[in-house]
Amino acid sequence: MKRTLTLLLGLLAGVTHAQNADSVAIRKIYNEALGNGKSYEWLRYLTKQVGPRLSGSEGAQKAVDWAKQVMEQQGFDRVFLQDVMVPHWVRGKKEEAYFRIGNRKQTVPIAALGGSVATGPKGVEAGVVEVLSFPELRALGADKVKGKIVFFNRPMDPTKINTFEAYGGAVDQRANGATEAAKLGAVGAIVRSMTNVRDDNPHTGGMRYGTGVALIPTAAISTNGADLLSKSLKDNPNLTFYFKQNCETLPDAKSYNVIGEIKGSEKPDEIIVVGGHLDSWDLAEGAHDDGAGCVQSIEVLRIMKALGIKPKRTIRAVMFMNEENGLRGGVQYADQAKTNNEKHLAAVESDNGGFTPRGFGIVGTPEQRAKAIAWKPLLAPYGLTEIGPGSGGADIGPLAQSGTVLFGFKPDSQRYFDYHHTPIDNFESVSQRELELGAGSMAALVYLLDQYGL
Amino acid sequence: MKRTLTLLLGLLAGVTHAQNADSVAIRKIYNEALGNGKSYEWLRYLTKQVGPRLSGSEGAQKAVDWAKQVMEQQGFDRVFLQDVMVPHWVRGKKEEAYFRIGNRKQTVPIAALGGSVATGPKGVEAGVVEVLSFPELRALGADKVKGKIVFFNRPMDPTKINTFEAYGGAVDQRANGATEAAKLGAVGAIVRSMTNVRDDNPHTGGMRYGTGVALIPTAAISTNGADLLSKSLKDNPNLTFYFKQNCETLPDAKSYNVIGEIKGSEKPDEIIVVGGHLDSWDLAEGAHDDGAGCVQSIEVLRIMKALGIKPKRTIRAVMFMNEENGLRGGVQYADQAKTNNEKHLAAVESDNGGFTPRGFGIVGTPEQRAKAIAWKPLLAPYGLTEIGPGSGGADIGPLAQSGTVLFGFKPDSQRYFDYHHTPIDNFESVSQRELELGAGSMAALVYLLDQYGL
Repeated sequence: MKRTLTLLLGLLAGVTHAQNADSVAIRKIYNEALGNGKSYEWLRYLTKQVGPRLSGSEGAQKAVDWAKQVMEQQGFDRVFLQDVMVPHWVRGKKEEAYFRIGNRKQTVPIAALGGSVATGPKGVEAGVVEVLSFPELRALGADKVKGKIVFFNRPMDPTKINTFEAYGGAVDQRANGATEAAKLGAVGAIVRSMTNVRDDNPHTGGMRYGTGVALIPTAAISTNGADLLSKSLKDNPNLTFYFKQNCETLPDAKSYNVIGEIKGSEKPDEIIVVGGHLDSWDLAEGAHDDGAGCVQSIEVLRIMKALGIKPKRTIRAVMFMNEENGLRGGVQYADQAKTNNEKHLAAVESDNGGFTPRGFGIVGTPEQRAKAIAWKPLLAPYGLTEIGPGSGGADIGPLAQSGTVLFGFKPDSQRYFDYHHTPIDNFESVSQRELELGAGSMAALVYLLDQYGL
Repeated sequence: MKRTLTLLLGLLAGVTHAQNADSVAIRKIYNEALGNGKSYEWLRYLTKQVGPRLSGSEGAQKAVDWAKQVMEQQGFDRVFLQDVMVPHWVRGKKEEAYFRIGNRKQTVPIAALGGSVATGPKGVEAGVVEVLSFPELRALGADKVKGKIVFFNRPMDPTKINTFEAYGGAVDQRANGATEAAKLGAVGAIVRSMTNVRDDNPHTGGMRYGTGVALIPTAAISTNGADLLSKSLKDNPNLTFYFKQNCETLPDAKSYNVIGEIKGSEKPDEIIVVGGHLDSWDLAEGAHDDGAGCVQSIEVLRIMKALGIKPKRTIRAVMFMNEENGLRGGVQYADQAKTNNEKHLAAVESDNGGFTPRGFGIVGTPEQRAKAIAWKPLLAPYGLTEIGPGSGGADIGPLAQSGTVLFGFKPDSQRYFDYHHTPIDNFESVSQRELELGAGSMAALVYLLDQYGL
């Protein structure tokens, strides 16, 4: 009994000692992130000097060159590119849109959705059918929809506390609205912007055409524009809507994932990924989406180097290409990992904005989750109180098939959709402290993953 | 045994039923706050139409009239004013400041600290002594300080996760710097602005003169200005600093706390206060500090009325006057409560900005705290995870002496000091959702306090 007790006490002392050491290490990580952080200045460059960087664009290539150069300057053990063919959609000349009541034209702000076809040089003008859902649209039937422009106007639910949930509840309109409208013979689809804010910024975003239906042009309309259109339709159900957009899909283009790594000192074959996506929408500087995730990921490796932390496992910062309109980079990375027989222990993604950290969502077995949840006492002092089941991230998603445990960085979500996919997703919308706290949080998690595995 | 078990199960069922009912009520409260919220439009009026409202100013009187009117329009059971005499400090003509190296003058942005004396019409020019702390200043001694301007340049510690802690660690320079400098014969005191951000906004704020020392003029300098001055001093220790400010303290003025209440249906003599302060600094619209707290407090009562909640106890929204430079409203309110023999069960204050809610700090006995902490499962789904010992709020502080339990609303603190006491503490800096979530959080807490007491 005494021996057992001694053993137990010894073990406990060991655990306490390790926890204290971890606690000290994590404090140092945050001190470095907040006191000497580089992520904010990197983000300034990426947003202001590189700027918009939709897959296939010149901006995207500049971003690849920039990310590679920054990581090389940091002296990481290896920095390399991974080829990936990406879709190449271009917006062309700025869109025009108005609705017409008698002789009066009311201009409204729209933005073609990524992947949409153009309207043709004369634009499209037609009567408008406003609906709040696909079932409502189908109930109207082809008779009432044929030859019309369908206006999808269901707002994001403001009572959802998590704005990503509200987004998830509305984004079907953007992704599949054109297809559903085309099935009934519509000639265009206009979609209320995915945001809780009422303003004049149309929020672009990805859409897909279903097979076997006509490819009709589709665009997002600003929430103020949507409200005005909806109100005007009540008084003038026969008003017509006109829009012209000049977008086109070019042949796939060559691009790259950009990868930097610090080689593991004990288990170099076990890899921990920390990443974000390098591409952004063409209308945005892509500060929160997802410049933040990129600079935070590079910062994780920089912090480790700066503090002289020699990871046991190999730590990789991965800047994925083409999250926004294809996910080709994420798929390619996972495919290459499989081909090269690489073992990816865990992947951490930051793609929910550079806001104040609240936690991590985990995709893994209950045992793996439990192990990470047990780290909460070490992370909660930094505001990371929400650690539990959740979603990982789009780019790291394909790694799950090979058993990689996914961690999605969860910052506060309240302002994310104010900026999402618009010109105001710019450098000025990011708080340096919030960004740096996120980098510290990701570095702390990566430190623990490296120390203890899963 | 069986009977005990039945009883226990019955009790448990009762508890569960109550929790379910509370959970439903709180969900409705947030739905109302987020779906039909009025706080944002009220804040727009208070910041844009009323504007700055330092105690004793015309703006403060306008704010009093406005708050009274809004609460009357809401049809609360009683809306009334409570007289309070407040300090009346005025900035006068905008300050001027530069430092001079040889013939070269470098302008820097300053703002007189609230309560400071003027420099006189010719301004003050003198050599500069830069220090990071009072001990460092005292170690220099009168020889090196006499006739000089003391430049207090200790930054807020960026590694503190809670920015209020960082503020607390630096604000002695603003509050007492002039006194400490005057003790050694200095002719002025310039204080680095209380913010983590590097920009060109000087952050004003309150200061006090100690008794028996000369009243020397004191001002805040922007962080960029402070960095430039510090750098220049390294190369040119003999540079001189010039500043002119035109502030003055007028006789005390009459003002008011503004109070609205819903009468309790069962225990009308037990009062629960929810409040913020109506005054702001003269340079700011006072959106986060503390227009947010005011409109959220009114919104708590509006939500209860809108949902048909008939509180058992009397719920009061109190807009305190003069938090910024005197706390006279808070003191007066507590004095009057004592005089009138009112029983204040609890007081909730929002004066930490209109940011995303994270919890409440509690000032009370361990038993009282435990009771409130037990509500966490009901509040955590709304992001209120940090409920525990903490600070209440400046205005409600004086109520503690009579045994009132204090609750300080804790929103995320990361951006608060970006705006604090500057012209950029404006309406545009507030997120509608974050503000409304705060109002919902306060209403939920008030609901539970009313249901269960402490």
